[in-house]
Amino acid sequence: MTSHMEQFKIIVWEEENFQGKRSEFMMECPNAMERGFRKIRSIKVENGPWIGFEYPEYQGQQFILEKGDYPHWEAWSGNSAYRTENLLSFRTIRCANHNDSRVTLYESENFQGIKFELTDDYPSLQAMGWCSKEVASIKVLSGAWVAYQYPGYRGYQYILERDRQNGEYRKYTDYSSQAHSSQIQSIRRIQH
Amino acid sequence: MTSHMEQFKIIVWEEENFQGKRSEFMMECPNAMERGFRKIRSIKVENGPWIGFEYPEYQGQQFILEKGDYPHWEAWSGNSAYRTENLLSFRTIRCANHNDSRVTLYESENFQGIKFELTDDYPSLQAMGWCSKEVASIKVLSGAWVAYQYPGYRGYQYILERDRQNGEYRKYTDYSSQAHSSQIQSIRRIQH
Repeated sequence: MTSHMEQFKIIVWEEENFQGKRSEFMMECPNAMERGFRKIRSIKVENGPWIGFEYPEYQGQQFILEKGDYPHWEAWSGNSAYRTENLLSFRTIRCANHNDSRVTLYESENFQGIKFELTDDYPSLQAMGWCSKEVASIKVLSGAWVAYQYPGYRGYQYILERDRQNGEYRKYTDYSSQAHSSQIQSIRRIQH
Repeated sequence: MTSHMEQFKIIVWEEENFQGKRSEFMMECPNAMERGFRKIRSIKVENGPWIGFEYPEYQGQQFILEKGDYPHWEAWSGNSAYRTENLLSFRTIRCANHNDSRVTLYESENFQGIKFELTDDYPSLQAMGWCSKEVASIKVLSGAWVAYQYPGYRGYQYILERDRQNGEYRKYTDYSSQAHSSQIQSIRRIQH
């Protein structure tokens, strides 16, 4: 464990606006209910980044949680169509040095077809020249990224990490099992 | 009008998922209702960026609209607490060359107190070292930016432009009249 990782810290509350039952975590929590929480309604990230998950055992919708205050669920859920008030497990993410982050997007499954390697944030992949609204497979070469369903970092969030499954997302269900869609219109690096 | 500006194009529909009455715009629209729309429920940005506004005459909540597809209101509204289905006026934004964007944040009103000059995107201002959740005044030196209430580009959006009021936002009501709050936890450049 590096000295950086020892600094990770998140505080969660059972009620909105940092009220009610409170607990601090320095490491991953696979099931908040087993720690005595019926729900989590507000969060402060003291040092991150973390990923929150809709369900226990890191299942369901994913939410990037960077340093700052999240007084209620709207602050972390990017998808208001499918109202997700649950956040029942969470873990830390290891990032690359910001300038070393690299990811390649592919037009087709299994890293086939037109590809594009990114090292920067793109609020609109189409403005960058990606001709489709969809991304069929993704290879993370370095760091951790968050891809979004809509432009401007909105909609469903997909966390993509070099340290998970070797950074290889061979088909859209590898990154988007919760959304049943390969639609990705913006992407950005996850920063310390 | 520069050649770049002539390329701006947005298509709007009265119903979700690009259904119903449709119209293309190459320039600003102060009141969609005067163009025969009772509402706008889906949008495609062919060339941007644009800003959408909740009410006619560029009033109310602001929504950054970059190139891509917005099949329903959740795709552009970052604030699901205050359910905003209206988008009744819109206009283009002039951006700087991406690498030339500059903005200075100030701790106190009228450009006083601790300040920080930014030239990059920050999904968490606190992670960058800004000690408060609030920003009291802002000077845009170059380009256009969008600041957000929460980390990770969530919550209320505030469009900040060098070309509006000389880029000077002397107190939070200059940028945040719709939200009645000076809370800003993330900020990014607006890109072509």
